[in-house]
Amino acid sequence: MEETFVPFEGIKNDLRGRLRCYKQDWTSGLKSGYRILAPTTYIFFASAIPVISFGEQLERNTDGVLTAVQTLASTAVCGIIHSIIGGQPLLILGVAEPTVIMYTFMFNFAKERADLGRGLFLAWTGWVCVWTALLLLLLAVLGACSIINRFTRIAGELFGLLIAMLFMQQAIKGLVDEFRIPQRGNPKLIEFIPSWRFANGMFALVLSFGLLLTGLRSRKARSWRYGSGWLRSLIADYGVPLMVVVWTAVSYIPTGNVPKGIPRRLFSPNPWSPGAYDNWTVIKDMLDVPIFYIIGAFVPATMIAVLYYFDHSVASQLSQQKEFNLRKPSSYHYDLLLLAFLTLMCGLLGIPPSNGVIPQSPMHTKSLATLKYQLLRNRLVQTARRSLRKNASLGQLYGNMQEAYQQMQTPLIHQQPAQGLKEFKESTIQAATCTGHIDAPVDETVFDIEKEIDDLLPVEVKEQRVSNLLQATMVGGCVAAMPFLKMIPTSVLWGYFAFMAIESLPGNQFWERILLLFTAPSRRYKVLEDYHATFVETVPFKTIAMFTIFQTTYLLICFGLTWIPIAGVMFPLMIMLLIPARQYCLPKFFKGAHLQDLDAAEYEEAPALPFNLATEVEIGAGADYGDGEILDEVITRSRGEFRHTSSPKITSSTTTPANNPISHQSPTSLLHT
Amino acid sequence: MEETFVPFEGIKNDLRGRLRCYKQDWTSGLKSGYRILAPTTYIFFASAIPVISFGEQLERNTDGVLTAVQTLASTAVCGIIHSIIGGQPLLILGVAEPTVIMYTFMFNFAKERADLGRGLFLAWTGWVCVWTALLLLLLAVLGACSIINRFTRIAGELFGLLIAMLFMQQAIKGLVDEFRIPQRGNPKLIEFIPSWRFANGMFALVLSFGLLLTGLRSRKARSWRYGSGWLRSLIADYGVPLMVVVWTAVSYIPTGNVPKGIPRRLFSPNPWSPGAYDNWTVIKDMLDVPIFYIIGAFVPATMIAVLYYFDHSVASQLSQQKEFNLRKPSSYHYDLLLLAFLTLMCGLLGIPPSNGVIPQSPMHTKSLATLKYQLLRNRLVQTARRSLRKNASLGQLYGNMQEAYQQMQTPLIHQQPAQGLKEFKESTIQAATCTGHIDAPVDETVFDIEKEIDDLLPVEVKEQRVSNLLQATMVGGCVAAMPFLKMIPTSVLWGYFAFMAIESLPGNQFWERILLLFTAPSRRYKVLEDYHATFVETVPFKTIAMFTIFQTTYLLICFGLTWIPIAGVMFPLMIMLLIPARQYCLPKFFKGAHLQDLDAAEYEEAPALPFNLATEVEIGAGADYGDGEILDEVITRSRGEFRHTSSPKITSSTTTPANNPISHQSPTSLLHT
Repeated sequence: MEETFVPFEGIKNDLRGRLRCYKQDWTSGLKSGYRILAPTTYIFFASAIPVISFGEQLERNTDGVLTAVQTLASTAVCGIIHSIIGGQPLLILGVAEPTVIMYTFMFNFAKERADLGRGLFLAWTGWVCVWTALLLLLLAVLGACSIINRFTRIAGELFGLLIAMLFMQQAIKGLVDEFRIPQRGNPKLIEFIPSWRFANGMFALVLSFGLLLTGLRSRKARSWRYGSGWLRSLIADYGVPLMVVVWTAVSYIPTGNVPKGIPRRLFSPNPWSPGAYDNWTVIKDMLDVPIFYIIGAFVPATMIAVLYYFDHSVASQLSQQKEFNLRKPSSYHYDLLLLAFLTLMCGLLGIPPSNGVIPQSPMHTKSLATLKYQLLRNRLVQTARRSLRKNASLGQLYGNMQEAYQQMQTPLIHQQPAQGLKEFKESTIQAATCTGHIDAPVDETVFDIEKEIDDLLPVEVKEQRVSNLLQATMVGGCVAAMPFLKMIPTSVLWGYFAFMAIESLPGNQFWERILLLFTAPSRRYKVLEDYHATFVETVPFKTIAMFTIFQTTYLLICFGLTWIPIAGVMFPLMIMLLIPARQYCLPKFFKGAHLQDLDAAEYEEAPALPFNLATEVEIGAGADYGDGEILDEVITRSRGEFRHTSSPKITSSTTTPANNPISHQSPTSLLHT
Repeated sequence: MEETFVPFEGIKNDLRGRLRCYKQDWTSGLKSGYRILAPTTYIFFASAIPVISFGEQLERNTDGVLTAVQTLASTAVCGIIHSIIGGQPLLILGVAEPTVIMYTFMFNFAKERADLGRGLFLAWTGWVCVWTALLLLLLAVLGACSIINRFTRIAGELFGLLIAMLFMQQAIKGLVDEFRIPQRGNPKLIEFIPSWRFANGMFALVLSFGLLLTGLRSRKARSWRYGSGWLRSLIADYGVPLMVVVWTAVSYIPTGNVPKGIPRRLFSPNPWSPGAYDNWTVIKDMLDVPIFYIIGAFVPATMIAVLYYFDHSVASQLSQQKEFNLRKPSSYHYDLLLLAFLTLMCGLLGIPPSNGVIPQSPMHTKSLATLKYQLLRNRLVQTARRSLRKNASLGQLYGNMQEAYQQMQTPLIHQQPAQGLKEFKESTIQAATCTGHIDAPVDETVFDIEKEIDDLLPVEVKEQRVSNLLQATMVGGCVAAMPFLKMIPTSVLWGYFAFMAIESLPGNQFWERILLLFTAPSRRYKVLEDYHATFVETVPFKTIAMFTIFQTTYLLICFGLTWIPIAGVMFPLMIMLLIPARQYCLPKFFKGAHLQDLDAAEYEEAPALPFNLATEVEIGAGADYGDGEILDEVITRSRGEFRHTSSPKITSSTTTPANNPISHQSPTSLLHT
């Protein structure tokens, strides 16, 4: 994307790009069949649970003016609109924590003003949204998003880790509060006497850790050794929602003497209770707001606009990192424009606006990569099996597989086969030459299909709109399902927050560098055995350490900022400061080449494959569930860029007599510093 | 061992064998230096914690006549005597659950008899012990232990799994009881009102699962990626005791409103409280027991004798399985003779007798295998490093290592190198030939010392008496440390019981076969990649399944038996019935060859290396801590017999063009059934 500030240029480009693949966005999603439900459910939970919890928080902070019903409604409506007419369908919209903080601040401001008060609070926020929308509109039109290229990994990943810290903080705070009398609680209730509070806290520990541990386990179900393949796949795909249900059920086991309020559960009014619709008619009050406050609304509006501009763009960027090998174009400007309209709409409806959220957006892409992987893998395994049945030689086998792979991408136009398949060809042919199998028919004892394919499939993403639309609709359904949602113990929520924080870590190179600092020098070769980023091999350990310590310090400062009551909302500004720092200061302390590898601004492992309109050939959605634990890796790889070098399988063999004949030979820097 | 029933023959043989290596038992142990503390502490906790808990159980059941002080004293005294003058020093002695059950039964009998009552209970059990000792003496003298060879894996492993089930049952029962008012408790205390009981139960869940999960994790610390080598080794060696301390500390965190009785802690009188020494003078009351009861004591004595004969022999056998490659001879007859005397002594002192315990005895051997492994490994790594520094060729390197290995075994007499080193030679030389390195000097990039050595070291055990003596002495120290022990929450105990149950599973082939039944067919190749028993490759899956289902049914019947109040004590009889069943019935249903592999009665992977008097060369005890995660495997391998075939490292390479060129080629039976 060029940096162009010609008005409307960016929006036009985005629209042109996305319109070309708009139809395919739908057909491709629909053709995946029931399997699309796995990423959908996964994201639905990741989207709905924080929104509900933020809604509760908002309810406490605004004396019940806004509740989980409003946050859910905003998330659902904005999500549905974005998934249908938005640009990048990988982006997930939702009411985020910063919005909650801003609304809390505004409520505290409004309720103390005699001519505003609780009554005109929503009308006033309506004006704030109007101004915000205007500002966002300006930013979108003027092409502010074209500087997104300067938002390098350092900023995005720092932001990602900050969000993970905030989620974890929320989980811990929530758990500690389970031992206390809740603000809203009537301290005379039986469940708030010290013994029951202590019991409630301990129960909360059990439920939240139960959810966290089983949730994390279930994500790795694909590599379990026990149980049949479809069961393992089912658990891996739907394990986390399932665990929320299971631990909610567990919370109902204690009966008898235990008071009803233990464990504490979600508290939210039903959407059909009286007064729940007061805020939908806020537009008619907007002219009652004194002119002074209408103009004054511009102040919070600028803050929200900056926040949304940053948050929305980074969430979008993190869900489209280069290592996902996306084929379809980005749409930063147009999406920001749409966000302006969505903010306006929410303001007029009296509900808090939604914007692009982290970590849900990258989680969405990740889960779609898993889906695509399953589809690709099944197709290639089928092809290989067919070839074997026909007694093909290894050469023919490879040919057939390459053809199948091409068909699934762009059947009409020739393009480079992906890196993975190339390596695959080389290694198998080399192996076959060595054993004299090259022209002989291969059979499964020579060629372990599933294993070989698992090892070499490239990361690709099922880019479509169906999962986003479905999850947003399901979030909307939550409003109706409120009586069921209220059965979920709050402690399960805290466990889920911790789960989301942990799930967002793998693939974040910043996090991986922090771990590397704590890795024993004698164990660093293990990092090289796994998928790992380039810098591990090319940058000296000392430089990695310095860079990481700088970034960690910066992160801690940002985290500290969030604790300052009002200024805290501006932490995105602090992160945006990183952009010039990265561009002008860091090069003075680090070598260009190292910086390039550590903060891969322009890094490209292979030129991104362009999206081609020609329809992808879809494979039967009813095919077998994939069985490879490599899928777990796809899931965890996420937002990192990877190289699979010095795999123990290859280098410990002696087929490549070049330079690493026996074992974990050490790629320069890391092991000897 | 031949089956000979000539009186005293067995005892004579045992004594002759053990006397030859008696001195070495001490010198070898002492020369290991501080490292001997790792297995010692590990076994001390495994020994003391159940004994304390059984003591509590006994106290409840005998109205306080016997307490944890007595069970600890018996365990300590018998342990010290056995470790000094016993035959097999790998065997751990302790008061076991069956003894507790028998004593409970006898107390219930005695307290209802007017002419015995609570007062003469211990005097009467004194007589029971006299008879038991006589019977055990007879069995030992007449060579009853020589049929131990017929106690095949099927009986021993079933017994091991049964004990694991009983430990797990105790853990669950204990946890459930944390929610109830304890039998001994005063229901009017504040901690027994419903809310505090519920709080106590939940807290118990947190503490016990905390201990269990962190304990299991810490055992695997050696393969962690983070932290320095010595820290990881320290955690792996002392992690479980450390976790008991940590979780005990955690149990003290809640203060303020929480009553002192929460969480519940160990309850036992201090050994210096008045009346604690009543029972030590029981011998003077023994003649007060009516003659009718003196004779009647013969009845429980026969039951206890059978129990002890079986329990003691099987515990000894499980700690000396062939795959441990022990060098020193067994001592079944002599140990049984000694047990007779120990039982007599305990009876006269009025304390419950100790006998060989499971799973502590095999755990002891296992932990000593880890120790020996560390010592061996350090020595070989040193040798290899020295050779590399001298620019030795691969041939010379191997020569030097073999020499070092021999020195550590028996420097004066030539003997076969262990299997592992042979394979090692073959694979490295093959690799070197292929790359043309055979005569060239090798360096660390070609030959990754630690990795190669880790992969190929054989299992050997540090056989000595020091660890046993030390742990028994430490158990004795517990009597004095009672005020500290009483700080441990009972819930931590239950967690520890669960930990012991789980720790005893790996290496039990019966357990591994059960797991195999639940392994997805497509995942069975994973079993072949790890260390695995022969039967996995040679016996058809269907046969494995049938055999395992038979054994599981038998296990469940035995487990059911333990629930029957009095007859339950006789469950060893049921297990002994397996011996003739194995010998006469099973061969009718299973092929001889399969049976041989599944229930490796005479199975020998390699002829056991005989113990040679020549002193082992000991290596400096201060050497570096080993760093290989292979140690984890040594720990978990335990009582199984293993083959390391179709290692992915070797078969996935193409250096052996013979028959498995590329990948996980399937060794017959397992994958295709």
